[in-house]
Amino acid sequence: MRNPHYSRRPTMRDIADELGVTQATVSLVFRNKPGTSDEMRRKVLETADRLGYVRDESARALRSQRPTAIGVTFRTHQPFHDELLDGLYRAVSPGPHKLVLSAVSDSRQEKDAIEELISHRCGAAVILGPRITDEQLSVYSGRIPLIIVARRSDRPEIDWVTSDDQQGMDAVVDHLVSLGHRDIAYLSSSIDASGSARIDAFIQACEGRGVGEHVQVHTAGITENDGARGVEQMLAGNRRATAVVAFNDRCALGAMEALHRRGVRIPQDISLVGFDDSTIASRPTIDITSVHQDTGELARIAIERAAARMMGEEPAAGDHGQIVATRLVVRSSSGSALSS
Amino acid sequence: MRNPHYSRRPTMRDIADELGVTQATVSLVFRNKPGTSDEMRRKVLETADRLGYVRDESARALRSQRPTAIGVTFRTHQPFHDELLDGLYRAVSPGPHKLVLSAVSDSRQEKDAIEELISHRCGAAVILGPRITDEQLSVYSGRIPLIIVARRSDRPEIDWVTSDDQQGMDAVVDHLVSLGHRDIAYLSSSIDASGSARIDAFIQACEGRGVGEHVQVHTAGITENDGARGVEQMLAGNRRATAVVAFNDRCALGAMEALHRRGVRIPQDISLVGFDDSTIASRPTIDITSVHQDTGELARIAIERAAARMMGEEPAAGDHGQIVATRLVVRSSSGSALSS
Repeated sequence: MRNPHYSRRPTMRDIADELGVTQATVSLVFRNKPGTSDEMRRKVLETADRLGYVRDESARALRSQRPTAIGVTFRTHQPFHDELLDGLYRAVSPGPHKLVLSAVSDSRQEKDAIEELISHRCGAAVILGPRITDEQLSVYSGRIPLIIVARRSDRPEIDWVTSDDQQGMDAVVDHLVSLGHRDIAYLSSSIDASGSARIDAFIQACEGRGVGEHVQVHTAGITENDGARGVEQMLAGNRRATAVVAFNDRCALGAMEALHRRGVRIPQDISLVGFDDSTIASRPTIDITSVHQDTGELARIAIERAAARMMGEEPAAGDHGQIVATRLVVRSSSGSALSS
Repeated sequence: MRNPHYSRRPTMRDIADELGVTQATVSLVFRNKPGTSDEMRRKVLETADRLGYVRDESARALRSQRPTAIGVTFRTHQPFHDELLDGLYRAVSPGPHKLVLSAVSDSRQEKDAIEELISHRCGAAVILGPRITDEQLSVYSGRIPLIIVARRSDRPEIDWVTSDDQQGMDAVVDHLVSLGHRDIAYLSSSIDASGSARIDAFIQACEGRGVGEHVQVHTAGITENDGARGVEQMLAGNRRATAVVAFNDRCALGAMEALHRRGVRIPQDISLVGFDDSTIASRPTIDITSVHQDTGELARIAIERAAARMMGEEPAAGDHGQIVATRLVVRSSSGSALSS
């Protein structure tokens, strides 16, 4: 049975009839082509609005063979991805591109989210914080241009944009060393490549500042429970640490809670630093020092690259990735190291 | 220029050629029709997988005039919407329907989010927590079946599913009264109809329990800053309250922070209750008593109604809405009232 709602969808013909002009005139306005007066342009858009005309993007994309939709996969329950989504919408508006979102969720894998974007004929896919491997991604890159955000890729066919983890970790360690910290623990995430990039950056930052010898790494993860587990593991060991740096803010929050439970005071007994500068880190009751990522800029570059790839442009060799500057936001969770 | 990636998209013909069968056979398998052996079915699906064949949903929807996509609008930075999204994906999988998401964000209005779903030929639109009026919604309901979640509608053409606010508020007030509270303040949100439904439920709950006379209402909103402002307004007044109920958990968190800043202890000096039982309310460092909404059930009903409307079914008169039970989750933010 045909959906009865569809029979009432107004068409370009309805607009043309209403104004007593040809469909071609209406079409020129919608395609932003010359050949109509400003006055006619205004009338057409007004009438379209009044009749409730909505352009049929999927039919248009099929006819023109030039897709306008940029697909986006994001993860639910990730404030950092919410901020990237805000940035992506800002980056496409106003402009010819539309976003089609496909979520990765507890019941839905990244693979399914990407395949759905392909099946909906998106012209490119922006993948926020991918966890599947480069090898798995490259299977898709043959079918749709891929732009990954918050991770690098060695594959020349995959575009990427990510924050400057090294600069961020350098700033974190500079800050802690200036407060007298020498024994710094790291709560790592090994769930994906961004985890390994960040731990490398952290270790390099410590080595560059003469505190590399005392570094200890504890396996944690990306959630609050992971962070709590990581810090319990640290407290159970017999190596002292006066500061803890966590892979992200959720992990840092879990660490904060576990430290509170054990009666360890922040920052008097131990300093704590997160990553992402998410909404939660900035709440006055939480107030965790963290590395801010420029989500607006990350999003802008992702859309720019998606649009270029959709036009068939290929970046110059070795030029398929971009790194965006970060900055440290100091809050009350980091303070002077105890003199021992 | 045609996107070079598209020329490599495998087709049904490629699968048929690979197996030495006709395209009709392949098509039967994909359409779930009888006429092929289980063995052939298995081979076709395996080959499709290996070649990386993805069904072109938008082309199929156009050909069949029967859309399979259910559009969803949600709001970024709303943990409650994240949970509904998890539920919606669970509700459509496995099944013939796909979700197309369109976000409402700081740079993007609800109106734009809904129009995009229409332009992408979705068969129905599920609107999470709409803020636009019923009158504005009804403009769209002529073009696409609408199912709204977390709000009611009087319009018979709009389906809705929402939590039982009255049951939730009854449980909150029962809980507070049993702890000895008589003077209860409410931090309201007037941003949308769910705000007014919830405040009505709160006042009715208080009146039904003999504490209606002492109720005080302070205008707050849906964010942490709104909650902080509402509680400051309450503290500036000269009417005492021993318990505060907030429109949602974000508002309650802001209230908690403002109370902490003023040195007011929770729950010794004042009890605090939120709504939504979101991830943040359940963090051990926050730990706010809150009303749990069954997001899985809300999502399941929304998809069921969307699917029915897409088949052209209309609910019986007066049967276009459903109410889902809630339950109170008691945490450490609520305790005994001080004896005065």
